[in-house]
Amino acid sequence: MAAFSATAVGSIPPILPGDDLARVIVAAAGPERLRSGPVIAIAHTAVSKAEGALVELSQVSPGERALELAEAQGRDARLLQVILDEASEVLRSERGVLITRTTHGFVCANSGVDASNSTDRDTVVLLPRRPDESARRIRAGIARLVGGERAPAVLITDSFGRAWRHGQVDVAIGLAGMGALDDWRGRTDANGMPLLATWIAVADAAAAAADLARSKDSGEPVVLLDGLERFQSAQDGPGAAELLRAIEEDLFR
Amino acid sequence: MAAFSATAVGSIPPILPGDDLARVIVAAAGPERLRSGPVIAIAHTAVSKAEGALVELSQVSPGERALELAEAQGRDARLLQVILDEASEVLRSERGVLITRTTHGFVCANSGVDASNSTDRDTVVLLPRRPDESARRIRAGIARLVGGERAPAVLITDSFGRAWRHGQVDVAIGLAGMGALDDWRGRTDANGMPLLATWIAVADAAAAAADLARSKDSGEPVVLLDGLERFQSAQDGPGAAELLRAIEEDLFR
Repeated sequence: MAAFSATAVGSIPPILPGDDLARVIVAAAGPERLRSGPVIAIAHTAVSKAEGALVELSQVSPGERALELAEAQGRDARLLQVILDEASEVLRSERGVLITRTTHGFVCANSGVDASNSTDRDTVVLLPRRPDESARRIRAGIARLVGGERAPAVLITDSFGRAWRHGQVDVAIGLAGMGALDDWRGRTDANGMPLLATWIAVADAAAAAADLARSKDSGEPVVLLDGLERFQSAQDGPGAAELLRAIEEDLFR
Repeated sequence: MAAFSATAVGSIPPILPGDDLARVIVAAAGPERLRSGPVIAIAHTAVSKAEGALVELSQVSPGERALELAEAQGRDARLLQVILDEASEVLRSERGVLITRTTHGFVCANSGVDASNSTDRDTVVLLPRRPDESARRIRAGIARLVGGERAPAVLITDSFGRAWRHGQVDVAIGLAGMGALDDWRGRTDANGMPLLATWIAVADAAAAAADLARSKDSGEPVVLLDGLERFQSAQDGPGAAELLRAIEEDLFR
């Protein structure tokens, strides 16, 4: 009988550029709570704000393509310019949605640019520049402050829409101290039958689970996940980049 | 501070056609444990087996298209015939994978036909015929056996691959007593800023979370989820069908 739990950390203050997120998280959760080494799921907006991955729309001059898209989609051309700047490829542009591949390689709506989750209407929040590096840095910072027999893992999340299904679920965009994929391919099930296609995106499942522990209006960017020890590691590991399908394997370009 | 937990139910026996799954779950989890009304996540293979949604490959005569695909993909033509029978549309057929829209409307690999999770090599497991109805029936059966102030919700899950990302996560394919989507569109965040695109597929997140509470080789098809009361309802609700994007909205056909 296995068990798994997710608990939102209360009293995280609004995050500002330059904030030391490791210090903020340790202060809010308490070092004792972190010493057992949970997986610490962090909504990317907190990471982006701390790192200053923000753009003031009033400083953006939209180019020709952004102006065209703004016209076609009835949207703010400056926001579309930011979205294009964050994209390596536009996959779809229909019905007021831009589906892009970001410079990191994520496929998502609007290059992950978040116009709703900032503190004023002129500022938009980008994805962290290098989310796996952010996760490693925050993990190291927390381990330094907390001690304990095992460093917690750090999982940076964002809400992505999905092809063919309504609604969004949180996925992993940055990761340190946990494997992103649990590979059962080639192994057998309880009946000795081969598990042919069992290759589980545990970091994405953990991100989705973390989101269930918070309320969207609660200002709770940090959630602690217990019971995932079997996926955690002393090493930082390859991070969430492991989850990205190579462009040449992409069936839905 | 919100919290959420997932606990696998031990000692579920192998499920056979004709089994009363409600009775099996109540016997394994205990009526007391279910009286508080958790969300009961059930791996679809248990539901399909109980309902006899199984095909003996030795009874299948592959047609021309299945034979062609079998040749091209180096796969069993009888299995491909079953996959085609379960599909309303083949979206992609590349690199040994058939991505289909099932007759239910799910887009997934191989029409959800599971050749690994059965008890012998000749039998393949289909998706339940009407998974939302299965969820409602199992929910009613459990409520009858257990009593309690609130009927548990029932969530039937399957592991789906995703476009653009490696690995699979569990999603909801059948649902009763819980909303599939939590709609924050038009509402505001903690700063009073509009949450423009926040429409959370909570049933899919719950399915993903349930999978983290079990080990793939453990024969634990049933997981109890606590802490999701805010998404649960006395009514069965519209089910997992609500999660399906209409074909005419599909950007990736």
